[in-house]
Amino acid sequence: MRTSIATVSLSGGLAEKLQACADAGFDGVEIFEPDLIAGDRSPEEIRALAARLGLTLDLYQPLRDIEGVDEATFAENLRRAGATFATAARLGIDTVLVCSNVATATVDSDDVSAAQLRRLGEVASTHGVRVAFEALAWGRFVDDYRRAWRIVELADHPSVGVCLDSFHVLSRGHDPSAIADIPGDKIFYLQLADAPALSMDVLSWSRHHRLFPGEGAFDLTTFTAHVLSTGFDGPLSLEVFNDTFRQTDPDRTAVHALRSLLWLQDKVAHHPQQSAASHLFPVADAEPAVGFDFVEVKAEDTSEVEVVLDQLGFTARGRHRTKPVSLWVAGAARVVLNEQLARDQAPHIAAVGLAVPDADATTRRAVDLMAPRAFRRTYGSEQPLGSAVAPDGSEIFWSTASADGSHPAWVDEFTDGAPADPASPVRVIDHVNLTQPWQTADEAVLFYTSVFGFSADAPTEVAGPTGLIRSQVMRTADGAVRLPLNVAPHVLSGSAPTQHVAFACTDVLGVARAARARGLPFLPVPDNYYDYVAGKFGVDASVVAELRELDLLYDRDTDGEFVHFYTRTVGNVFFEFVERRGHYDGYGADNAPVRLAAQRRDTAR
Amino acid sequence: MRTSIATVSLSGGLAEKLQACADAGFDGVEIFEPDLIAGDRSPEEIRALAARLGLTLDLYQPLRDIEGVDEATFAENLRRAGATFATAARLGIDTVLVCSNVATATVDSDDVSAAQLRRLGEVASTHGVRVAFEALAWGRFVDDYRRAWRIVELADHPSVGVCLDSFHVLSRGHDPSAIADIPGDKIFYLQLADAPALSMDVLSWSRHHRLFPGEGAFDLTTFTAHVLSTGFDGPLSLEVFNDTFRQTDPDRTAVHALRSLLWLQDKVAHHPQQSAASHLFPVADAEPAVGFDFVEVKAEDTSEVEVVLDQLGFTARGRHRTKPVSLWVAGAARVVLNEQLARDQAPHIAAVGLAVPDADATTRRAVDLMAPRAFRRTYGSEQPLGSAVAPDGSEIFWSTASADGSHPAWVDEFTDGAPADPASPVRVIDHVNLTQPWQTADEAVLFYTSVFGFSADAPTEVAGPTGLIRSQVMRTADGAVRLPLNVAPHVLSGSAPTQHVAFACTDVLGVARAARARGLPFLPVPDNYYDYVAGKFGVDASVVAELRELDLLYDRDTDGEFVHFYTRTVGNVFFEFVERRGHYDGYGADNAPVRLAAQRRDTAR
Repeated sequence: MRTSIATVSLSGGLAEKLQACADAGFDGVEIFEPDLIAGDRSPEEIRALAARLGLTLDLYQPLRDIEGVDEATFAENLRRAGATFATAARLGIDTVLVCSNVATATVDSDDVSAAQLRRLGEVASTHGVRVAFEALAWGRFVDDYRRAWRIVELADHPSVGVCLDSFHVLSRGHDPSAIADIPGDKIFYLQLADAPALSMDVLSWSRHHRLFPGEGAFDLTTFTAHVLSTGFDGPLSLEVFNDTFRQTDPDRTAVHALRSLLWLQDKVAHHPQQSAASHLFPVADAEPAVGFDFVEVKAEDTSEVEVVLDQLGFTARGRHRTKPVSLWVAGAARVVLNEQLARDQAPHIAAVGLAVPDADATTRRAVDLMAPRAFRRTYGSEQPLGSAVAPDGSEIFWSTASADGSHPAWVDEFTDGAPADPASPVRVIDHVNLTQPWQTADEAVLFYTSVFGFSADAPTEVAGPTGLIRSQVMRTADGAVRLPLNVAPHVLSGSAPTQHVAFACTDVLGVARAARARGLPFLPVPDNYYDYVAGKFGVDASVVAELRELDLLYDRDTDGEFVHFYTRTVGNVFFEFVERRGHYDGYGADNAPVRLAAQRRDTAR
Repeated sequence: MRTSIATVSLSGGLAEKLQACADAGFDGVEIFEPDLIAGDRSPEEIRALAARLGLTLDLYQPLRDIEGVDEATFAENLRRAGATFATAARLGIDTVLVCSNVATATVDSDDVSAAQLRRLGEVASTHGVRVAFEALAWGRFVDDYRRAWRIVELADHPSVGVCLDSFHVLSRGHDPSAIADIPGDKIFYLQLADAPALSMDVLSWSRHHRLFPGEGAFDLTTFTAHVLSTGFDGPLSLEVFNDTFRQTDPDRTAVHALRSLLWLQDKVAHHPQQSAASHLFPVADAEPAVGFDFVEVKAEDTSEVEVVLDQLGFTARGRHRTKPVSLWVAGAARVVLNEQLARDQAPHIAAVGLAVPDADATTRRAVDLMAPRAFRRTYGSEQPLGSAVAPDGSEIFWSTASADGSHPAWVDEFTDGAPADPASPVRVIDHVNLTQPWQTADEAVLFYTSVFGFSADAPTEVAGPTGLIRSQVMRTADGAVRLPLNVAPHVLSGSAPTQHVAFACTDVLGVARAARARGLPFLPVPDNYYDYVAGKFGVDASVVAELRELDLLYDRDTDGEFVHFYTRTVGNVFFEFVERRGHYDGYGADNAPVRLAAQRRDTAR
C-alpha cells in the first residue's frame, strides 16, 4: 500500500516536513492548512518541491464547520470553501477533508447535511477537487462514521465521499465492522492513529495523545482490515497530534512513523479477515526472543564494575581475543565489560544481547522495519551478531539460541577464563531496566514490539523523591525477556540516567550473604521499611530480622513472593538480584520509592 | 487558623520537607506514610526534628482498604491498622487518616462499615490515636462525604470522625453545603486542594493535577466557609498531588503553598457566610491595578532597542538623573531602558510597572502574602515604588495612579528629555507577554491573582513550529492590565524565552506606515496568510492588499476586529502594536502560529 502522513504529525516548517517525509521513504503527505499558511512558500512552490522530492500531495485539510447550518450561513460557508478548494487546486491536491460541524451546526438533519454536501461537491468539482467528509468524535450532530456515510450516500455526488479516521471511530468505541458496507471507491481517504487507553475528554485525548499505530491501545489491525476489505486502495495515512512529536526531530519522527505503517501492514497481512488482494508491504517473519544472551556494560575503565561482579559471585571468563572486552558469568547470566572506544565514559549499559530462534530471520525483520544497524568491528573468525540501535541509543544484538542450552559460540572468543560455575545460585538475567529520554519513549515501544515481537505492559508510575517516573515493561509472553523502560521526570532529564540489570536467582538470601562476606556494599535500606513490611504483610519477626540484616526488600501478591536487593550505583548502572517465589510476576513496584530515596541519599554522601 | 501541609505535596526527603515547611512558616505537617518508610530517620527522630523546628505533626496518612469487608479480612485489616497506629504513636501523631475502601470492599452496607470503624476506633484508642474517615472520590462503595459522615455517625465512637478533602467533594460536583450539618468536633481533619477544570477520570486528575487553592477552578472559599461554620478549628491543611511540585524546589513550593492558605483565609474572611468567630489570618486589602505604568527592558547595551523605539515613533524623554536608565514615551505608554547591573545581558523584559489606586495598600498586601520584595537603589529625593519579585524572576513595581491622568512623579526623575507627544496614535501598553518556566507557571497564577487581584482566564494552547505553547492571561476585569503568561515546550526550555510588549493604538495602519517610513524592519508575514484571511473572513481585496503591504495581521470575531503587527526580535524581546476595533477582547490567537513560524525563519536567517 502507498504510505502518507499529515504534516501536523511532525515539527518544523512545511518544507522541512516534506524533506523529512521524503527522506524516510513516505510516498505522499497530507498538507495541514495551518502549515501552509504559516509557511513562506507559495502553494505552487510546495507543489514543485513535493514533485522534486517524489512525494504525492494526497489531501488538503481541514475545512471545518460547513454543513448542518441555515441557508445564509451555508452561503458564506460555500464562499469560504471555494477559497480552500482554490488553494488545494494550486497545490495540485485533488481531495479536501471536510470535518463534521462542531462550532456552528444548528440543523440536526441527514437530509439538510446531505443537500449541503451535494452543493459543496458541485463547487468542489468546479475546482477539480473532491470532498472527503469525516465524522469528528466530538462533532455537534455528526459524530459517528456510520452517520457520515449515510449522509454521503444521500448526497449522492461523485465528488463527495467519506474520510475514515481510526481515532474518531475507536475512541468512541464504535464498531468498525460497518466499514465493510461502504464501497471502497466512496472511501476518499483513510487516516490512521493509535492512542493510549485514557479516560478523558475525547478532544484533549485526540489533540495531545495520539500515537503511531502499534504504540497505543487501539486495534488498528482489525480496523485497517475492514477498510481494505472494501477494496480501498488509497494510501495508508497517519494523522497523529502528539505533544512530543510536535517538538522533536522531524527526520527521526518520520522514520518512526513509517515503521508504524510497515508494522501495521505486517499485522494486517496476518489478520484472518485479510484478503490477498491488497498490496501490503511484506515484512519478514521472526519468532520472538527466547531469553537474554548478555548485557554489555561499557566504560573507559570497567574495573569498579569488576570488583562488584566479583563480590556478587560472578566468574571472570576471560578477555576477548581481539578487543579490550571481558566476560563475566554466573549461571547462564553473562555480563560483557567493554572498554573499547569508551573514552571519558562512566559505566553504563551500552548493549543488550538476545537469544532468538533464528538470528537471520530477526535480522531480515529488523531491516524490513528500518531498524538502524549497530556497527561492531567483527573479524572473519568471530561470530557475527545481528544488531540494531534502539531509539535511546542502546544497541541490541542477537544470535540464534542453541538447541541444547549450551553457551553461544561467541563465548569461545573469550580466552584464558575459568569455565562458568554450573552450581551458581544465579540463573539468568531477569530484566534490564533502560532509562528512556522522553523524546523517544513512544518510539521505543514500537521498536521493541515490532522488531522483536515483545508485548508492552500497561504503563505504571513510580514516585521518586524528585518526581514521578513512568515505567512500561516490554516483555515476551513467558517473561524470559523483560525490558522495563523508564522515563525520568524533567528535572532529571539533564542528568545521566541510572539503569540496572536484575539477575534471577534461586536463593537470594544465599547470594546476599555470600556477597556481604565478600565485602559488597549494599544499597542501605532504612529501618522504617522493615517496620512497614512487618505491619503490611504480617511477616514473621524472624523473617523480617533476616531481611533487615541483609538489606533485602520484600513484596507479596496473590501469585507469590518477591525478595530482592540492590547494589550501590557504579557510574550509571547498578545491579539487582531477585528471587521470584511461586508465580510472582511483578517487580516490587511498592519498593521502588524506597530504593530511589536510598539511592538519592547514597549519591549525596 | 493554623496551617499545615501533607509531605507528599513537596519533593525531596522527609527531613528536607520538614525543614522547608518550617522555613516557610507552616505551623504543622501531615506525614505521608511512604515518606516515612523511604526515609532513614526513625519515627522518634522525626518527632524530635519536628519539635525542634516548631512544627506540629497533625496527621499520619493514609491507611487504606479497611472497612466494608468480610470478617476474616477485617481481622487481618485490624492487625495491619494496629501497626500503623503504633507508628503514629511513635511519631506522637494523634490522628490517622483512613480512606474509604477502594480495592477490597465487598460489603456495601453503612451498618457493616460503621461497626468496623467502631472496632477500628477501639483499637486506635488503645494507641492513643483517633481515626479520620475520608470518602475518596473513587471509593468502591463510599465515595461521598455525606455517606462517610453517616457511617461515622452510626459508628458513634469518640475516636472516629470524618476527614473532609475539598478535592474529593468538589471533583464529584457534590454540594458542600451539607458540611454545615456535621458537628465541628466530629470533623477530625480538613484537607484542601484546588484543581483545574479537566474532564478526565477522577483518579488521574487527583494524582497528577491538584493545585494549591487559588490556582484552579474549584470554589475553595465557599467550601472552607462551610467547614468553618461548623466551629471546626483544626488546621487548614494542604494535600496537593502534582507532577510539577513533586520535582521542583521544596523550599520554594512551601512558600507558594503557604501563600495559598493566606489568600484563602482572605477570601473566606470576605465571604458572606463567614462568621467572625474564626481566627483567620488578616491580609491587607488592596484594589486591583488600574493600568500599566511602564515596562522596563534591561540589557548591557540597550541601543538596538532605542533604534526600534525611535522607528516606532517613541520619544526619548531623557536619562534618569542617577542611573544609566532612559525613558521612552508614546502616548501614555512608557518604556524604561535599563543598563544598570546588566553585564552580558541581552535585551529582555526585566520589570513591569503597575498603576494602582493605593500603592501603600498594595505593598501591605504583598508583604502579607509573602511576596519577596524587589530591590532597587532609590535615593531620598526619588519616588520609592512598591515592589515584588514574580515567580519567574520578573520584577513588578507599583505606584499610586494620579487622579488626573497626569504622568507619575517618577517620570520627573528623567531629565533633558522632550515632553511626551500627546498626539501619538499610541495609547497605552495593551499587554505584556511573559514567558514562564514550567516549574513556576502555577505559582505565577496564584501570585498575580492574590497579590494584585487579577483574574486568570482559562488556559489556551498555541501551536508553534517546535511545540505547543500554553498561554494563560492574568488580567483586570476592565482589561486595562493584561499579562499573558506563556509556558514554552520542553525543547525550548533551555533557550532564552521570547517575551513581548504590545501597545494599543488608535490607528495601527498609520503607526505601521510611519514606522516603515522610518525604516523599521517588520516581522515578515507570508503571502499565504493573506490568501487565507481573504478566504476565511471574506475581507475586501483592497483591505487585504493593505494588510499584505504592511505585514499586518487580522482577526475578527462577533465582538469586533483586531489588526496588529510585530517588530523583529531584539535580544529576547519584540514589540507588537494592536488596534482593537469594536469590543474585540482577544489576542489574535489564530495568528500566533503564523507569528511563531515567521520568528523561527527570522532567527534562522
